[in-house]
Amino acid sequence: MAFELSDKVKTLRFQVEQFMEEHVYPHELEYYTWTDDHEHLWTYPPFFEALRRKAKDAGIWNWFLPAEYEPWSPGLSNYEFAPIMEVMSKVPWAQEVFNCSAPDRGNMEVLARYGTPEQQERWLVPLLEGEIRSAFAMTEPGVASSDATNLECQIRRDGDHYVINGRKWWTSNIFNPKCKLMLLMGVTDPNAERHARQSTIIVPIDTPGVEIVRPLFALGHYDSPGGHGEVQLTDVRVPAENLILGEGRGFEIAQGRLGPGRFQYAMMFVGMAERCLELMCQRVTERVAFGEPLADKTSIQHDIARSRAEIEQCRLLVLAAADTMDREGLKGARNYVSMVKIVAPAMCNTVADRAMQSFGGKGVCQDTPIAQIHALSRFCRIADGPDEVHMSQLGKRTIGERVAPGRA
Amino acid sequence: MAFELSDKVKTLRFQVEQFMEEHVYPHELEYYTWTDDHEHLWTYPPFFEALRRKAKDAGIWNWFLPAEYEPWSPGLSNYEFAPIMEVMSKVPWAQEVFNCSAPDRGNMEVLARYGTPEQQERWLVPLLEGEIRSAFAMTEPGVASSDATNLECQIRRDGDHYVINGRKWWTSNIFNPKCKLMLLMGVTDPNAERHARQSTIIVPIDTPGVEIVRPLFALGHYDSPGGHGEVQLTDVRVPAENLILGEGRGFEIAQGRLGPGRFQYAMMFVGMAERCLELMCQRVTERVAFGEPLADKTSIQHDIARSRAEIEQCRLLVLAAADTMDREGLKGARNYVSMVKIVAPAMCNTVADRAMQSFGGKGVCQDTPIAQIHALSRFCRIADGPDEVHMSQLGKRTIGERVAPGRA
Amino acid sequence: MAFELSDKVKTLRFQVEQFMEEHVYPHELEYYTWTDDHEHLWTYPPFFEALRRKAKDAGIWNWFLPAEYEPWSPGLSNYEFAPIMEVMSKVPWAQEVFNCSAPDRGNMEVLARYGTPEQQERWLVPLLEGEIRSAFAMTEPGVASSDATNLECQIRRDGDHYVINGRKWWTSNIFNPKCKLMLLMGVTDPNAERHARQSTIIVPIDTPGVEIVRPLFALGHYDSPGGHGEVQLTDVRVPAENLILGEGRGFEIAQGRLGPGRFQYAMMFVGMAERCLELMCQRVTERVAFGEPLADKTSIQHDIARSRAEIEQCRLLVLAAADTMDREGLKGARNYVSMVKIVAPAMCNTVADRAMQSFGGKGVCQDTPIAQIHALSRFCRIADGPDEVHMSQLGKRTIGERVAPGRA
Amino acid sequence: MAFELSDKVKTLRFQVEQFMEEHVYPHELEYYTWTDDHEHLWTYPPFFEALRRKAKDAGIWNWFLPAEYEPWSPGLSNYEFAPIMEVMSKVPWAQEVFNCSAPDRGNMEVLARYGTPEQQERWLVPLLEGEIRSAFAMTEPGVASSDATNLECQIRRDGDHYVINGRKWWTSNIFNPKCKLMLLMGVTDPNAERHARQSTIIVPIDTPGVEIVRPLFALGHYDSPGGHGEVQLTDVRVPAENLILGEGRGFEIAQGRLGPGRFQYAMMFVGMAERCLELMCQRVTERVAFGEPLADKTSIQHDIARSRAEIEQCRLLVLAAADTMDREGLKGARNYVSMVKIVAPAMCNTVADRAMQSFGGKGVCQDTPIAQIHALSRFCRIADGPDEVHMSQLGKRTIGERVAPGRA
Repeated sequence: MAFELSDKVKTLRFQVEQFMEEHVYPHELEYYTWTDDHEHLWTYPPFFEALRRKAKDAGIWNWFLPAEYEPWSPGLSNYEFAPIMEVMSKVPWAQEVFNCSAPDRGNMEVLARYGTPEQQERWLVPLLEGEIRSAFAMTEPGVASSDATNLECQIRRDGDHYVINGRKWWTSNIFNPKCKLMLLMGVTDPNAERHARQSTIIVPIDTPGVEIVRPLFALGHYDSPGGHGEVQLTDVRVPAENLILGEGRGFEIAQGRLGPGRFQYAMMFVGMAERCLELMCQRVTERVAFGEPLADKTSIQHDIARSRAEIEQCRLLVLAAADTMDREGLKGARNYVSMVKIVAPAMCNTVADRAMQSFGGKGVCQDTPIAQIHALSRFCRIADGPDEVHMSQLGKRTIGERVAPGRA
Repeated sequence: MAFELSDKVKTLRFQVEQFMEEHVYPHELEYYTWTDDHEHLWTYPPFFEALRRKAKDAGIWNWFLPAEYEPWSPGLSNYEFAPIMEVMSKVPWAQEVFNCSAPDRGNMEVLARYGTPEQQERWLVPLLEGEIRSAFAMTEPGVASSDATNLECQIRRDGDHYVINGRKWWTSNIFNPKCKLMLLMGVTDPNAERHARQSTIIVPIDTPGVEIVRPLFALGHYDSPGGHGEVQLTDVRVPAENLILGEGRGFEIAQGRLGPGRFQYAMMFVGMAERCLELMCQRVTERVAFGEPLADKTSIQHDIARSRAEIEQCRLLVLAAADTMDREGLKGARNYVSMVKIVAPAMCNTVADRAMQSFGGKGVCQDTPIAQIHALSRFCRIADGPDEVHMSQLGKRTIGERVAPGRA
Repeated sequence: MAFELSDKVKTLRFQVEQFMEEHVYPHELEYYTWTDDHEHLWTYPPFFEALRRKAKDAGIWNWFLPAEYEPWSPGLSNYEFAPIMEVMSKVPWAQEVFNCSAPDRGNMEVLARYGTPEQQERWLVPLLEGEIRSAFAMTEPGVASSDATNLECQIRRDGDHYVINGRKWWTSNIFNPKCKLMLLMGVTDPNAERHARQSTIIVPIDTPGVEIVRPLFALGHYDSPGGHGEVQLTDVRVPAENLILGEGRGFEIAQGRLGPGRFQYAMMFVGMAERCLELMCQRVTERVAFGEPLADKTSIQHDIARSRAEIEQCRLLVLAAADTMDREGLKGARNYVSMVKIVAPAMCNTVADRAMQSFGGKGVCQDTPIAQIHALSRFCRIADGPDEVHMSQLGKRTIGERVAPGRA
Repeated sequence: MAFELSDKVKTLRFQVEQFMEEHVYPHELEYYTWTDDHEHLWTYPPFFEALRRKAKDAGIWNWFLPAEYEPWSPGLSNYEFAPIMEVMSKVPWAQEVFNCSAPDRGNMEVLARYGTPEQQERWLVPLLEGEIRSAFAMTEPGVASSDATNLECQIRRDGDHYVINGRKWWTSNIFNPKCKLMLLMGVTDPNAERHARQSTIIVPIDTPGVEIVRPLFALGHYDSPGGHGEVQLTDVRVPAENLILGEGRGFEIAQGRLGPGRFQYAMMFVGMAERCLELMCQRVTERVAFGEPLADKTSIQHDIARSRAEIEQCRLLVLAAADTMDREGLKGARNYVSMVKIVAPAMCNTVADRAMQSFGGKGVCQDTPIAQIHALSRFCRIADGPDEVHMSQLGKRTIGERVAPGRA
């Protein structure tokens, strides 16, 4: 039936829920206590590796990779994975426990879709195994990078190599102790047609000339162990076979990267918002103020009702996006992709905001995950392009479709 | 597939779309020109009856009645009807063209579900044929009627009759020239348990003692030809067999009335909002201000993008409600029913508000349907109970479910 | 002291408050019952003239006209009048009782500032006496009139006359039985510099060629007795001496018209919002729902607190605007003028919206003034130019001032 | 004149503006680079002490203390200081440069108002000199502390001493290397009338039994060097003469502490919001996206216009609060005090949020002060009591005043 989960998905989701209950929630805050402590900068908390091992042993691993990527995919469609992704994301860092975290998720998909067998063997397999991590280097400090045609970083052919010069920032995961490569987007031919100038190339991060200038805070957080780096690339030479798909195909790759990635990204906020709502519901039954439990105050009831309705709507939107992607591909789903980008982080931020108020002083500090979720969701109204860019694109497409439906 | 319409529904919806294009949109504003003119108070515009006839002849008739109501139902499930209801509602008055308008819709369902064969023969059949219309009398001016246990109107047994005394208001459709009956909810036993005091009874409106005191404006509109009446009932005697289902079952009936009715009601706002969005998209491509089309202004693009995302989310929520109602019945769908009530009218009002701004002076007057939609959607944040009541209920239930999931 | 009213103003305001209590509130709803009844279209309710007489006798008359307009002004500064205007506006129609209503208010100021002695004798004096009423014809249906340079209505010199051809709409007050003239803005020289094309001229409404095509609804209301008209002007000949100030000065006059007018306009919404808040406070102490007075529900308390804070902030903004206008003139106050236009109608609409919800069914019908205030404030987010136009202007000026303060 | 600053204030404010330009803005980000670096935890940046010295030498020192506190006050009224406080707060940490920062500001006022000459000599004078710093310990982790009658920390008389046992958190400034004392609020008589149970006492932080358990993050920030601490007090003995004002006077002191403090606190957000607006205006003229400067996009213009109107309204509200406090004292100003608490932090957070979007990736990291302002303003929707508590209080008082004006 339409809005009902299949038995297969119910079973798998239940398995993940059990894993979360048994192994993840007990460490929920411990993770942040470790990663927010600067003494532990760029390291994983000690319990983490065992947890990943446990998930891998349980077979909850790489489920994000759609069925089309045989043989690496465990075989779920986007629509099947979406409700599971929600559960995995209720504790944001748990995504990595299941090898389903950004930016590796997107990088693995790029390599699975566009990589040569050699590239896949060299980089994709260890990523899928969880042995290494990766970064994605696109945004540049000097230009409005949400318009990818503005990019300035140069990738110049020089014999059997490409030589890269430029500066990137918001290169997420670059500080990760296991990070071995970044996918980098830059300009191979500045004179080509606007969307054929860019290429994407694999850059091992230990290549001479790669310099991590500094970490960037995301609303006060280092987001350790992965972090976000500003990276200077000076005469960085990489073998020509590191280029993905061919010169001038960078824009196409970037678009493809946004396919499943975008709805998974959105579903993450549904899970996080649902987690905030759960915590809020718990809180308001326990806390008494001015003579009655918070749960008895209509303003609290309304905040909870609004949150539930907003979460549910966003969840359905993401499911529709995933389903459309399965049926019509990225192009058919592009309006959904825009919509979930606009809706999901803002929705989660709003729900976290309400939860925060219900917790008072406890809600803004490290004693709940709410402040982390609040910051992450706010951050993501900018990451992957400010909301405003996506709203303008969706607005223009909507006008085009409504006024001349045949054109759509 | 999950979010795709079946071929059957696509075909039927296309049929309705064609009918709307050919027969309804050409009269869209003419209807209001007639009904807003006090010289025509409580009459239908001349073209209306022919239009209904045409729809009936085309077989687009009573589709709202779910498949369970054999033999009257044309056989659609709630989930199948929902996307069609959206199209029908893009012009609010068109619902009646297809015999799918409130409050008759709900009344017909009550009679189909709970009526005796005699009640069905006498009242339901002519309603289904479109020969007569009906009103629903529940709200009372003296009490907070969103809490139905507050009702005061008395229904007293007296031999073979019931005698009714009380005052109702917001009795919609009572001025309709074809209105022959109202379903009235009142108190049969004030000493019974709180939810067993009320009963529902059929009152022919020509019964002595029924006095329509005055019409009520809904945000400035008479909503002719049906209108909203304040009704005084003084010693109104109706045969005992007019009671529906039995004494003390009024609350149960009122709940049942809200089943399909509530999601159909919500879907109405999706259709109306979509209509506003279409008009806005058209407008902004045609209007130039300060040197460029409105369509080129980012603030307009964002308004359109937000509207689209809000409409789509609400649409999915209503579809999920309809589907859940098909699968689990009203009780299983009650959280969805609360959510759509909270979300849909407010969403439509917001979208209409943005459309209005894009039209300037034209948007607030009779030259578009936007002001009508704006008023109707605002009105419905109160009709059927203020948003706040539904938010408190949903909030309390959500707390209960989240804190003790086993109870849900 | 800074934020304290002077004794003079306190005394005058108290006088108006007393008048309102004794003479206006008792008729508050009766006015609308009359004017919303189409049988009384374009007529004043019977009690109205006596009420105006009473106000005039009490000397509460024309207080809007700033002290600079000797000998007609009663001598109040803008800053002194503002808090009194608030009280007068708590019942919107009461402004006319005190001869302080739009559009006459603005027209009188134009004539007082720019008129010749003959124009003043012929038109201003009877307006100040309340013997006649006037309309203002600027907006045109065919163009985005918020950009006044778009206007197309022609005013052509022909010997001792001007001949006018064009179409106007939203010509407010044109249906008023006492309306004798309109101030009309049109194009005298289409080849002049953009802001020197327009002129303003006095058009007696009984001039041949003036045809009122139809009334316009404002969100469902005729706004009788003044109404809003669409007006066709065909070869309308008026004496050359009816031109105000000279050819090409129309833009300048329109700007001047917006001076005190704009803050008075804004203060109107403060008064109306305060009225809604009073009614809401009364309501919530009287109404019991789900076991407690509405006043005990935190959601209601928050709505009231938010409303109070928003009203107070807007009030202070309007007072600052009035004070700045007194000290620095319109040019010095132009940012304030933009701000109050953006803030005041929207604030009032929001406060009315909350009040409406607290009243339930009673709040949307004719039993309170809330629906009228709701419609009027919504209408005024478009009247005098959509909010968006003013926001763009203010935004651009703000950027200019902040980035290069010397330029401001 | 009403809304114009006096020449005295203009001169002083200009002096502060000059100081900010010359000495503070050049260090604006450097401060955060230092304090956000965990290697420098609980230390001041090296330049800070010289800056304070410079401000003190310039005589810009302790201006927050109202004229009534002779001889320590420099003699400004609240209304005079308010516009200066705004300028000082444009860089939040600059308040301390001028010895006008929380929580010392409030503590100094408490000691100046209620302290004995000995208490003043021992603690107030060094605070006024800037030689030491202080903390304020009121909130407790176990109870809803916004309702001060819930406090549980015990202050028990024992001969010439009081013995304190309890746990506090959000004890701001406790980590400050110069912090020597905290003012602590606790219960002296649990059986007294509800508002007479609490007392306030001076606790030197080196008293045995005072244990700082851990620092609390405020939305991810340590807020070094002052920080926020969770503090365990175990049999902490302080001399009886450390009690302020007398047993049972704690509630009264807490109220008094909120007088000038509350509007100064609010004005801080006006300054911070204004700073964000300036940065945003600068940004949008420099950044080009999709073919035009951000400044040319209407959505940006509207965001700036809305921000300006909101800032200006809040500024006027705070000025009105300060002026009313000067004229009528805290009791007369209590509604204003509630309003500014509700309005100011939320307004600033909203303005910072818009600014953040306009900066893209730069706006969420350490390259502007926006993320710091965003976090601080969000934090303060909870600090000093969640908005909701203040809205309920204001709502209830408003109902009381509107319904029975004589009672107000």
